[in-house]
Amino acid sequence: MTPEEFRKAGHELIDWIADYRQRIDSYPVRAQVTPGEVHRKLPDSPPSQSESLDALITDLENIVVPGITQVQHPMHYGWFPSNAALASVLGDITSSGLGTLGISWESCPALTEVEEVVCDWMRQLAGLSDSWQGTIHDTASTACLTALLVARERLSEFSEFGGGLQGLNKPLIVYTTEQAHTSVVKAAMLAGFGQLNIRQISTDPQTYAMSADVLQRTMADDVDKGYIPAVVVASLGSTGVVTFDPVDEVVDIAAQHGAWVHADAAMAGTAMMLPECRDLFKGIEGADSISWNPHKWMGTILDTSLFYVRDPRTLVHVMSTNPSYLRSSVDGDVTQYRDWGIPLGRRFRALKLWFHLRLDGPEAICERLRRDLDNAKWLERQVSTTDNWKVVAPVRLQTICIRHEPPGLEGEALDAHTLTWVNAINESGKAFLSASVLDGRWMVRVSIGVESTTRDHVKALWELLQATALEKLV
Amino acid sequence: MTPEEFRKAGHELIDWIADYRQRIDSYPVRAQVTPGEVHRKLPDSPPSQSESLDALITDLENIVVPGITQVQHPMHYGWFPSNAALASVLGDITSSGLGTLGISWESCPALTEVEEVVCDWMRQLAGLSDSWQGTIHDTASTACLTALLVARERLSEFSEFGGGLQGLNKPLIVYTTEQAHTSVVKAAMLAGFGQLNIRQISTDPQTYAMSADVLQRTMADDVDKGYIPAVVVASLGSTGVVTFDPVDEVVDIAAQHGAWVHADAAMAGTAMMLPECRDLFKGIEGADSISWNPHKWMGTILDTSLFYVRDPRTLVHVMSTNPSYLRSSVDGDVTQYRDWGIPLGRRFRALKLWFHLRLDGPEAICERLRRDLDNAKWLERQVSTTDNWKVVAPVRLQTICIRHEPPGLEGEALDAHTLTWVNAINESGKAFLSASVLDGRWMVRVSIGVESTTRDHVKALWELLQATALEKLV
Repeated sequence: MTPEEFRKAGHELIDWIADYRQRIDSYPVRAQVTPGEVHRKLPDSPPSQSESLDALITDLENIVVPGITQVQHPMHYGWFPSNAALASVLGDITSSGLGTLGISWESCPALTEVEEVVCDWMRQLAGLSDSWQGTIHDTASTACLTALLVARERLSEFSEFGGGLQGLNKPLIVYTTEQAHTSVVKAAMLAGFGQLNIRQISTDPQTYAMSADVLQRTMADDVDKGYIPAVVVASLGSTGVVTFDPVDEVVDIAAQHGAWVHADAAMAGTAMMLPECRDLFKGIEGADSISWNPHKWMGTILDTSLFYVRDPRTLVHVMSTNPSYLRSSVDGDVTQYRDWGIPLGRRFRALKLWFHLRLDGPEAICERLRRDLDNAKWLERQVSTTDNWKVVAPVRLQTICIRHEPPGLEGEALDAHTLTWVNAINESGKAFLSASVLDGRWMVRVSIGVESTTRDHVKALWELLQATALEKLV
Repeated sequence: MTPEEFRKAGHELIDWIADYRQRIDSYPVRAQVTPGEVHRKLPDSPPSQSESLDALITDLENIVVPGITQVQHPMHYGWFPSNAALASVLGDITSSGLGTLGISWESCPALTEVEEVVCDWMRQLAGLSDSWQGTIHDTASTACLTALLVARERLSEFSEFGGGLQGLNKPLIVYTTEQAHTSVVKAAMLAGFGQLNIRQISTDPQTYAMSADVLQRTMADDVDKGYIPAVVVASLGSTGVVTFDPVDEVVDIAAQHGAWVHADAAMAGTAMMLPECRDLFKGIEGADSISWNPHKWMGTILDTSLFYVRDPRTLVHVMSTNPSYLRSSVDGDVTQYRDWGIPLGRRFRALKLWFHLRLDGPEAICERLRRDLDNAKWLERQVSTTDNWKVVAPVRLQTICIRHEPPGLEGEALDAHTLTWVNAINESGKAFLSASVLDGRWMVRVSIGVESTTRDHVKALWELLQATALEKLV
């Protein structure tokens, strides 16, 4: 395809995307397709000849779009917000259009240096001190694995250069809680620690936050047994109920053993942009690494996961490679992001953030975040003051965990009721919510924060919740 | 930003990208900026207010573009081709525009099922049997790490569910060669095997391919010592000289010990699309996993790294997570790609391949690949029949490893000469080549395969090589 053909097709596509974004609220929120339905509509074999863009657009309309759960829909309250702000989409389009290659500073100096700059801008916007240096990973799962690998190496005297984890005789131990994202346990298992060496520290029964006392005692116990406390993953805004582990106490306890502290603020990190929310993160400056995803609530399109460390030298020591075919004369003077993570090659991801911050501006972004917090407070008030409805966990930010608890319904019957009404809403396509288990019982998470979600949408949701829960009670 | 504002800005940006792509050959190939130059031109602090797209485009022109090494330039012969075919760029733009979220089948059924379909199309185009199932990773580095993790678990009776790698008493051993990409050693170290447990199997002095005899003996030795041969990474098209390890023999030897075989065909995998090249991959059907990157020679824009396994159940067993907040009623009936790799969330990457294959068509893609092979043969003939020039490794595909060896120059003096002339070319901005070390001596890789590189460009390169090498000889 020539640049001129691209120009024509590109204009057509931009119009299609703008139209699509304009009519998002006309689609069902959850995709209504059955397993295999999209697959079956596509040819089993690859095309042999080239086709027209029109054929592609027709298939996008008829096959792809019906298979999309509309996370940009104002009535999407599932999982966490996954905004793809159009300003950041323009940055992503620029990255695609430029077609750069990020395998070393030399392969695209601008890719490296714009990333340095926007990571530092984000640090400033989050109110973090200048002792942090950042990079962009694809997801918080990868960031967490990276943190655990660096921690593993620091606490094993860099065993990777010797016999590896299999050469150790004192097991390294990982600490987290059951409220932590499952990617934490997955990362610990992939990093080779072993499930038996992961301690699920118990949480406060009211707040669901990690108990610092239990962490303290568990670490001391492990030391007595001859084990090595290696790393604590503190959840700052957990996935289920958005609880905040007491990172200030965690860092003090970890410091007694030289253990690494990784602060997983994947969704909630965005709240650091609001000074009035920073108390929730008290003590984060003492952590060793932080991850947070502008690609969630803040709205820079996926995949934009920030990963900050206070000591890049250790990170680079663990991750570095320097093959002859990638050496250049400037190696000592520049940042080589290939040594800050797992993949060698990277896209020009920084453009998404650069465009988002410059075109929308941090002020407007923060204003929207405050709107979402107000909407969450409003909904919390409705739920907590309405008979038979209950807010089941403290509301820290924009996610409200609720249950409809009609008299006489308990235990499994209550679970069945919860799943029935939430599934009915999700199947209707009118709104989408995630159910989740808390203290062994299903509850429903209302995670507010889609860019287009206004107070009216939240009001409409609250009416829908009440009507559906009552209707399904029969 | 509203959809209407996006429409306007999007059109402007498409024109800018088309113009940029049209004038790529007017830029120096290697970015001419010094370390920190791009960084210093950008403000230290984030903007507080929103800015206009025009301000962004001005900065793209004046700050970003001069900081790009133009890997889409027809005179780019460095590293490996890193094409970003405009047909695939349109797919990437669609992915950005849709703003979907890939964390489960339910979060975007189309994302999952189009990925299933295009991975199978690519399998067919590569002539692989239907016993392979694929997914798209970001890079071959990540694919290799994933393969090593699954291998580690299979050969350790799934130690991740017990004491992890630190609970083993028999070390697991990894086998590869010095010609393998550095990401292999990096992945083995990150997977916890330890550098001491990586065996660099010696290679044939003529072909640089892994010696099957040495592999056989080394594995037997390790077994005698009580170690466990866990995984062989066979390079099918290595990075330095594009050599092919004898994967047919490797799989037979590995099978004697139940070891995993990962076939790393990152660049060269594209050659499987040409039936006349498939002999190079003889035996690949016996491997356990394969990675290859359409984002290199084939030209689907970064990041598009295919990862195929013959036994997805083991992969999923090692990688799976199933938190309550991601469960849905269809879990057993659908593919959950989050369980096929490290990150939980994914972009709609399949669209890049879908657009590329449908808009350009496999026929045209294969025609271009054959053109590149012809160009490489032509250059090989020139170099090998010209006095004082030498092709230093067998040419298997589109990469030619060469040296200018004037009489009397040997050892370090020859190295100095090689680095002088190649650096002179790179600094001139007229062409870009990578130097690499082979048998302890620097040589220069000419890796042909940029979409826009014609025979005339290769002829111009050959003239430039000769002129510069002679000029720098003084």
